[in-house]
Amino acid sequence: MREVAILGVGQTPVREHWEMSLRALAVEAGRAALADAGVDKVDAIYVSNMNSDRLVGQRHLGPLVADYLGQRGVEAVKLEAACGSAGSAMRQGMMAVASGELERVLIIGAEKLTETPHQETTAALATAADADFEVEQGITFVGLNALIMRRYMHEYGYTHKDFAPFAIAAHANASRNPNALYRYAIDEREYERGRDVADPIRLYDASPIGDGAAALLLVAADKAPSAVRVIGSASATDTVSVHDREDILWLNAAELSARRAYDQAKVGPADIDLFELHDAFSIMAALSLEACGFAERGRGVRVGLDGDITLGGRIPISTMGGLKARGHPVGATGLYQLVEATLQLRGEAGATQVPGARIAMTQNIGGSGATITTHILKA
Amino acid sequence: MREVAILGVGQTPVREHWEMSLRALAVEAGRAALADAGVDKVDAIYVSNMNSDRLVGQRHLGPLVADYLGQRGVEAVKLEAACGSAGSAMRQGMMAVASGELERVLIIGAEKLTETPHQETTAALATAADADFEVEQGITFVGLNALIMRRYMHEYGYTHKDFAPFAIAAHANASRNPNALYRYAIDEREYERGRDVADPIRLYDASPIGDGAAALLLVAADKAPSAVRVIGSASATDTVSVHDREDILWLNAAELSARRAYDQAKVGPADIDLFELHDAFSIMAALSLEACGFAERGRGVRVGLDGDITLGGRIPISTMGGLKARGHPVGATGLYQLVEATLQLRGEAGATQVPGARIAMTQNIGGSGATITTHILKA
Repeated sequence: MREVAILGVGQTPVREHWEMSLRALAVEAGRAALADAGVDKVDAIYVSNMNSDRLVGQRHLGPLVADYLGQRGVEAVKLEAACGSAGSAMRQGMMAVASGELERVLIIGAEKLTETPHQETTAALATAADADFEVEQGITFVGLNALIMRRYMHEYGYTHKDFAPFAIAAHANASRNPNALYRYAIDEREYERGRDVADPIRLYDASPIGDGAAALLLVAADKAPSAVRVIGSASATDTVSVHDREDILWLNAAELSARRAYDQAKVGPADIDLFELHDAFSIMAALSLEACGFAERGRGVRVGLDGDITLGGRIPISTMGGLKARGHPVGATGLYQLVEATLQLRGEAGATQVPGARIAMTQNIGGSGATITTHILKA
Repeated sequence: MREVAILGVGQTPVREHWEMSLRALAVEAGRAALADAGVDKVDAIYVSNMNSDRLVGQRHLGPLVADYLGQRGVEAVKLEAACGSAGSAMRQGMMAVASGELERVLIIGAEKLTETPHQETTAALATAADADFEVEQGITFVGLNALIMRRYMHEYGYTHKDFAPFAIAAHANASRNPNALYRYAIDEREYERGRDVADPIRLYDASPIGDGAAALLLVAADKAPSAVRVIGSASATDTVSVHDREDILWLNAAELSARRAYDQAKVGPADIDLFELHDAFSIMAALSLEACGFAERGRGVRVGLDGDITLGGRIPISTMGGLKARGHPVGATGLYQLVEATLQLRGEAGATQVPGARIAMTQNIGGSGATITTHILKA
C-alpha cells in the first residue's frame, strides 16, 4: 500500500441548476479538478450518485461521464451508498491508487434533485431507509431523524434552542462561500422561528437538497510531494433500519470508521484542525461529534453551546457551510466535504480559512447512519 | 499488488422467485459462498445490483445485505454499471484485496426483476442506455441490439439462421444445469420458429430476465494455495449511446479490457479453455468473440457454425447456459459467470464440465457495450 495524495479539486456551486443536466454538472466539476491538477488523461473515473436512475432516468453514469469528459475508454464505475455515496467512491478510488493498480483516478460526485416534484424527490430519498420495515410504515427520512432528536432531547435534557449553534455556525460560514446554496447568516431568533418540519426538527435543523457536483484527482503521494495527502480512510456500516439498533443515540459506524482512520493516521481527535461532518440534520452533527471522540456521550450539543465549532474554535465544523447551508446534493456531498477540506489544508479557503489548518477530517453518512466513511487529510 | 484467489462460491437458481425478497436472495448466495469457503466473518461486502431502487424501492444495499448476512458493521458498498454491475463489483473487490487493505472480501450480485409489470421493468432496464439521446427517442434495449444485429447481417452477409448455434449451445448446457432458468434444449427449427421481438431479433436471440443472486469470497492467493486464482482483471468503457461510436460492429471496451487481462495473465485466446461471455443477445456473443480475439472481424458467427462453442469445442462458451438460458438477473449476471467459471476450474461443473479446464475467461457487459469487464481465472 502506497500513500495517496489529492492533486486537484473542483466543484460547481450548489444551486437549483435548471440550465444544467446531470452530466453537465459532473463534467464541469471533473474538468475543474483536472485543470487544477494539470492533468489531461486519467486511468479511471469513480462516479458517486444516489438518485439519477429515478429522477433523471439515467443509470450507468461511469461510462457516460467518462465519455463526456473526453476520457472515452477509461475504466469507470458508479458507487451508491445513499447520501454516503461520495465517501464510498473516495474510499474505493483511494484503494485503487494505493494498490498500485491505477495511477490517476478521478472521483466525481454528482446529483440533480430539483427538477422533479417534491414528493418524487422525497420518495427517491426514502430508498436510503429500509423499504420493507421503515418506508413501508410511511416514515420519511426527516421523520426518522426527528425520532432520534426527540429521544436525545429527552435522554439528556436539552431543548430545541440548544441545537441553534450548529445552524448558526453553518450559515455564518456559508455566507462567505460563493459556492454555497444559502449565502446568508441567521441568528438564534431566526433559528427558533423556523417552521416545524417534523417535530422537533424545524426548518433550520434540516439541510436543503440542491444540484451540484464536486471532484478530486487522486495520485500516488510520491508523484505529488506537495499535495494534500490522505492519511486515513475507513468505512463501516450499521443496520439500515434505525429500530434494529441497540442504541439509536450512538453512531456505531461513525465510531468504527473514525477509530480506524485515527489509527491509520496515527492521530486523535485533539489533532484534527477542522471536521467536515455530515450535518444533514443538527442531531446528526451532535451524534457525529460524540462518536468521533470530540465530546462525551450526550454532550455533542455542548460543543456548539461552548463556542467550539466556529472557525476560531476548538474543532471548527462545516467550515464552508456544511450540508446545512452549503447545501446537500446527496450523492455529491461527500466529495464537497473532501474538496473543502483540501482547500482548507492548501490555505485556499478564502474568507472561511481555518488559520494554520494542517489536519482535516471528513465524514460522510449514508441513511440514518448505516454507511459511514471517514477520511483524514494532511497538508 | 498481491495475487487474489476465489476461496468460495455460491448461487441461487435463476427463477421467478416470488417467495423471496431481494435481500433474501442476496443472503442465500452470500451464505452459500461463506459456507463453501469455510469462513464466518469478512472485512467487506461489495454488492452489485442494477434496478432495486426503481423496482424494489430499496437503495443502500451495502449495509442492508451486510446486516442480514450477520456481518453488521463491516465495510460495504453497492456498485452499478447496468448489466455490467457485477463485473465491476468483482474488479473493485479484487483491487481491495490485491492492495493488502482488506483480507476477506465477499462480492454479491443480486437482482429482483420479475415482480413488477413488464413495462416498468423494461423502462428500468432502459436507464442503461443514454436517457437524453437514445431512450428519449423511444428505443428500447432490444431495439438497440436489433439495429446492431441488422447491420452485422447486412455487412457480412449472414442470415438469421446463422446465429442459431449460440442459442442451441446455451440451451443444451442449461438443460443440464439445475440452477438455470430454461432447463430444456432447443433445435434449429425451434430457434427459427421463435417469434419476432425486434426484427431481426427473435425470441431465442434474447436472454430472459430472472431473479437471482450469486456470490464469491476473495482472499489473498498465498492464504489459499489450492483455490482458483484471478490472473487477469480489467475494465474499460465506450460511449453509452451506440450512435456515438465510430463503428457499431466493434466492442472497443471488450477489446481494451480483454487485451489488458491477457497481458496481466500472460495468456492469449488460444490458452482460454472456456469463455463465459455476455450473450444478452446472440449478436453480442458474436461481437465478443471477435473483440477478444477468438475470431476475425465479421467471423464471430462462424465460430458457432463451425461447432467450436460447444463443451468439447475449441472455445466453449456459456457452459452452464449463459445469459440466454441460465437466465439474466442483470446486476447479478457477472457473478454467475465468475461462479460458473470457478466451478469449471475446480472440476465441479457436473454434467456440463469442460474436460481438463485450467484457464477460464469471463466478460460482463453493461449497456450496449459501454462498460465491459474481463476476468481471467486459473485453476
